[in-house]
Amino acid sequence: MAPLSLSLFALPGIPLVEPGDDIAALIAEGIAHANEALRDGDVVVIAQKVVSKSENRFFVLDEVTPSEKALGLARETDKDARLVELILSESDRVLRYRQGVLIVVHRLGFVLANAGIDRSNVGPEKEGERVLLLPEDPNASCERIRQGLHDLGGATVAVVMNDSLGRAWRNGTTGVALGSSGLPALMDIRGREDLFGRPLEVTQIGLADEIASAASLLQGQADEGTPFVVVRGMTFSGSPTDAGALIRDSQEDLFR
Amino acid sequence: MAPLSLSLFALPGIPLVEPGDDIAALIAEGIAHANEALRDGDVVVIAQKVVSKSENRFFVLDEVTPSEKALGLARETDKDARLVELILSESDRVLRYRQGVLIVVHRLGFVLANAGIDRSNVGPEKEGERVLLLPEDPNASCERIRQGLHDLGGATVAVVMNDSLGRAWRNGTTGVALGSSGLPALMDIRGREDLFGRPLEVTQIGLADEIASAASLLQGQADEGTPFVVVRGMTFSGSPTDAGALIRDSQEDLFR
Repeated sequence: MAPLSLSLFALPGIPLVEPGDDIAALIAEGIAHANEALRDGDVVVIAQKVVSKSENRFFVLDEVTPSEKALGLARETDKDARLVELILSESDRVLRYRQGVLIVVHRLGFVLANAGIDRSNVGPEKEGERVLLLPEDPNASCERIRQGLHDLGGATVAVVMNDSLGRAWRNGTTGVALGSSGLPALMDIRGREDLFGRPLEVTQIGLADEIASAASLLQGQADEGTPFVVVRGMTFSGSPTDAGALIRDSQEDLFR
Repeated sequence: MAPLSLSLFALPGIPLVEPGDDIAALIAEGIAHANEALRDGDVVVIAQKVVSKSENRFFVLDEVTPSEKALGLARETDKDARLVELILSESDRVLRYRQGVLIVVHRLGFVLANAGIDRSNVGPEKEGERVLLLPEDPNASCERIRQGLHDLGGATVAVVMNDSLGRAWRNGTTGVALGSSGLPALMDIRGREDLFGRPLEVTQIGLADEIASAASLLQGQADEGTPFVVVRGMTFSGSPTDAGALIRDSQEDLFR
């Protein structure tokens, strides 16, 4: 059953995240700073970028040597060949490319632009231009943070890691779940009936993606500095599945 | 600037919608029933299905005569040829098809399964099996409802019409904006800078789609009967653009 109301709040005053920082501790401090306490059932949504920073997923472009393939694609897309090399190293396959963008199948299964490698909000450049890769294992990161929050405060929450991704057919980015822990990322309602007792046609809901989009409304994209959002009031049915359940098998995908 | 908090609530006790019903009046009654009042800046999210019903977008399958093309596609997809005929009549182009599904470019520009034609929650079958098509002009419907709400209660709100759609590459449906009025459906943040003064890479946000997904968390898909959700606390920058701004030009689309 869907909830009748939901509240979302962002945690203000979060410091810039550095490699080695404990994300769960930062969230706990932010919650205390907001005069709040996490409750059982809360969903904590975390921007991918701060997790990547805490896990030191930085790469310095000057230290990357582009392959022949990267040099060729860089010419065709008018992109930095070192960045293209990193994109290729993070990807299983290039699906499409054009001026300024490579759409790839990331090693984690996501279809996204430039392998999710980011130059915005990465930080001041001390030792050459740095870029930031996705976490090694976003679901594991979410599970670790979820455990950390439980250890710090006692509440049993769910965690979603989100990023703003483009999509096929539609303009603009939306928040998408790259990782999750503690909730059914894909909610299966097969077997349920509509108001008139007819079996439903929609049978699987991308629940973690909808939560990721909702939280994205509070995170902003620019200089807001609000990477953590609490979603309060969700109700779930079904067993937890991580965000891997949201990735369509390539054999079933009509658009690769 | 993104808001620091948001609240969402669904309106309970909404009666089944019939052709000719005044959606704005139903929302106003639901708001009063919930002991609430709409406020300036609220976003009212409305499930597409109830708008289609109020606009009598029902078709009786027995009254449809399938063309040769529809008969052929029906054989290949194992679908009802009369339904395929309706799908084709609502579409500019068939992009992909397979067992049970046609992915089309709808005459309104959306890429979606089966032209958004729905059999769930359509109602009891008096005169043969009925299906429900998308509204003729979802943005105009939203604008009309927005005006109606203003006339009824005085508040200046925004309206989003949402539906649960599948997408490329990922499992599960998410809420998507088919129409909107009174907000920047696509929020353009080009020219803004990140925390370190670097121009942003993400420059357009699918704001109405993120709102549509957030509201979808409260609407459910089955027998919840909560088609109206109020999103309170949004802040917008930029001029209103309707949900047509979210549709990518076919020439710019790499996945058709």
